[in-house]
Amino acid sequence: MKILITNDDGIHAEGIACLNDCLREAGHEVVVSAPYTEQSATGHAITLRKPIWAKKVYKKDTFFGYGVTGTPADSVKIGILELAGKDVDLVVSGINRGANLGTDIPYSGTVSGALEGAIMGYPSIAISSINPKEPHFCTAGVFLVDFLKEFDVKTIKRFGALNINVPSVQYDLVKGFRYTKQSSRRFDDYFEKRLDPYGNDYFWLMGDIKEEELPEDSDWIAIQKNFVSITPLTVFMYDHEWYQELKKMEG
Amino acid sequence: MKILITNDDGIHAEGIACLNDCLREAGHEVVVSAPYTEQSATGHAITLRKPIWAKKVYKKDTFFGYGVTGTPADSVKIGILELAGKDVDLVVSGINRGANLGTDIPYSGTVSGALEGAIMGYPSIAISSINPKEPHFCTAGVFLVDFLKEFDVKTIKRFGALNINVPSVQYDLVKGFRYTKQSSRRFDDYFEKRLDPYGNDYFWLMGDIKEEELPEDSDWIAIQKNFVSITPLTVFMYDHEWYQELKKMEG
Repeated sequence: MKILITNDDGIHAEGIACLNDCLREAGHEVVVSAPYTEQSATGHAITLRKPIWAKKVYKKDTFFGYGVTGTPADSVKIGILELAGKDVDLVVSGINRGANLGTDIPYSGTVSGALEGAIMGYPSIAISSINPKEPHFCTAGVFLVDFLKEFDVKTIKRFGALNINVPSVQYDLVKGFRYTKQSSRRFDDYFEKRLDPYGNDYFWLMGDIKEEELPEDSDWIAIQKNFVSITPLTVFMYDHEWYQELKKMEG
Repeated sequence: MKILITNDDGIHAEGIACLNDCLREAGHEVVVSAPYTEQSATGHAITLRKPIWAKKVYKKDTFFGYGVTGTPADSVKIGILELAGKDVDLVVSGINRGANLGTDIPYSGTVSGALEGAIMGYPSIAISSINPKEPHFCTAGVFLVDFLKEFDVKTIKRFGALNINVPSVQYDLVKGFRYTKQSSRRFDDYFEKRLDPYGNDYFWLMGDIKEEELPEDSDWIAIQKNFVSITPLTVFMYDHEWYQELKKMEG
């Protein structure tokens, strides 16, 4: 397949290098179009009011890919429209350093890279290695290659994308994969207030995971049991059940 | 009600001034916590790697609100946790200059302000005046005040938010409101390539609306018929139908 890859940790990150290596070794044609600088937690931002550049990035004197001076969504747009060509078979965003589970998803630059592919009409996958401190990118990369041997990406739904989270363990310790539901796992945020040298308060955003019971079929439970979690996402945030309730009230 | 308001056009924008005036005149207590600078198309970005400031902004020597050196989602987080207090009854994001319909939603800073309120557990509404050139903010502001007289915000679903788009016409020309479905209305993107003075290509993102037939109950059709469109959104992007199909294949 011809695969466009992007990420949110930036083109110089270890995760995208591993993704590139794994997909190439498996015989895929890979084009890298990824943010030139780290873009974590950018959500689905795009660059509208200023132009972007696509800089050629070399690793060990070999052309590696395009470093885009924008967001993951920008990188996918320009990757398909100007860099890789429109005959891309698949968009993969990752391998992210850290989980994208539950309510991480709207904030996630990694997932937004895949959702941008979905909006543009391409089969798309986001992939993350859950532990930012000891990510085990290889486990995630090898899992993806194996998964793509079995799974036909043409069955990925129009306007949909798969969100894959991989346990950060050696590959032989992964128990398999489970299709999962996005959970309500979320952070309990707080701000740490400090005083700047000019006498003004400033704030660092902090947060701890809110522990709560989650259903057995949720993304977080699969991960905790050392399964790969694969959650089907849609770009639409519309709530049909709630719509039906409201419609009754409209009269 | 005690209402926290934010936007993505920035605290100095006309839309949030109008929203503030309309809500105050209707007797609500309003706290403004909005980005200090314009943050259009930032999606659900948050600021993690650097701190943020909340600057007191005055208009005509009167305290107007807090200008946050971050995104709409940052402004809501700090607005609730540090500025307004946790006893907020409602979060309103807007009034945006321009529509947030169909696939605009994942990119929208305005909608992300409301979705952040939803993630934090507060009833939340995003409101936009559809024409960026002639927005008619007053129509949107007056509509919202009237709507809040009838609609109990406590019925807004946990993890849900209402996305309101208002036609940019005089109030008496608005035909009423309709609960709608998020449509697949989207842009056909392209890049305009130019050469910078240093010999490098750079790219401006451009796009035209892709014309296609949309269902009668969609957001865009309501707007075109001069109805206010109210779409119920969820912060979850999980696709349950697709999940059920995948689960069968899991074996």
